[in-house]
Amino acid sequence: MINNETMQSILARRSYKVFDSRPIGDEELETIVTAGLYAPTGMNRQPWHFTVIKSKEGLEKFGEARRNLPLPPGIPAAAIAAMGDPMRNAPVVIIVSGKDGGTTPQDCCLAMENMFIAAASLGIMSGWDHAMVMDLFKNNAELKAELIPEGYTVYAGAFFGYPGPTVKDRGERKGTVEYI
Amino acid sequence: MINNETMQSILARRSYKVFDSRPIGDEELETIVTAGLYAPTGMNRQPWHFTVIKSKEGLEKFGEARRNLPLPPGIPAAAIAAMGDPMRNAPVVIIVSGKDGGTTPQDCCLAMENMFIAAASLGIMSGWDHAMVMDLFKNNAELKAELIPEGYTVYAGAFFGYPGPTVKDRGERKGTVEYI
Repeated sequence: MINNETMQSILARRSYKVFDSRPIGDEELETIVTAGLYAPTGMNRQPWHFTVIKSKEGLEKFGEARRNLPLPPGIPAAAIAAMGDPMRNAPVVIIVSGKDGGTTPQDCCLAMENMFIAAASLGIMSGWDHAMVMDLFKNNAELKAELIPEGYTVYAGAFFGYPGPTVKDRGERKGTVEYI
Repeated sequence: MINNETMQSILARRSYKVFDSRPIGDEELETIVTAGLYAPTGMNRQPWHFTVIKSKEGLEKFGEARRNLPLPPGIPAAAIAAMGDPMRNAPVVIIVSGKDGGTTPQDCCLAMENMFIAAASLGIMSGWDHAMVMDLFKNNAELKAELIPEGYTVYAGAFFGYPGPTVKDRGERKGTVEYI
């Protein structure tokens, strides 16, 4: 493997459940968002909007909604406790929403991965929040109206922050590869 | 913006419609695939399989199926001619398939973007092929049985190669950003 700086960022990227309390600087955040804006899109439509929540008020309001999101039924109490705080102490939340169908769901995912890697290159880690994508904005019309443009659907949402103290080893790669 | 090497790779990445005829070396290809294997997945399931088509025979067989894929009705002949060869002269095709539902479609998209950026860091460019993802493997059971493991669904497919001669300027960024 060719171990250049880009690969080092890709391999350093980790999903975090708890972030450090340090804020993310404006220049770092602009760098991360710029990476997202340069992801590929079908037919180069770039059919997306990036909602970046970083203010104390924004995080508190979003955090209240996120914490109040009902969990799917049947999850044991111990598992819920092990999940920790849904907001993960993160100083930044980025939501990518898109419009006009077609490849938009894929486009928004590609943008998020660009932001994950750009962040990792700056020592900032991330964590996809599937509940935010799947449930929060479908079940909270008021929050959606406030954070997401009219006519857009949320396809990707994640937390960003400096790494917290508790991180498990990333473990083995389980994917299979066949060369033909 | 912080313009480190990772950001340079992210900004250098371009979608190509025509590739150069140079092959991709084994070490470069291994680097690209490794990047894909290190993308995040929901619950760290890594529920995916990477099919890497690079042999002459594999490309010829896949190319025949890809070129024979019917276009959606209503596309003008001039537009079809402007599309060029569906195989784009690419020396490598990578298909990411996944199993078990959940976040698997998103996971596979994130893996593909990792591979796009790793490739760009090596001067190798890429091009998502939505028709491959949406139509080819749904309509060609024989090809799917040959290339994709039983029980897996294709969620991402793209061409990789060194840049060909004709590339348009990438143009303005159209996404909108709101900081809250």
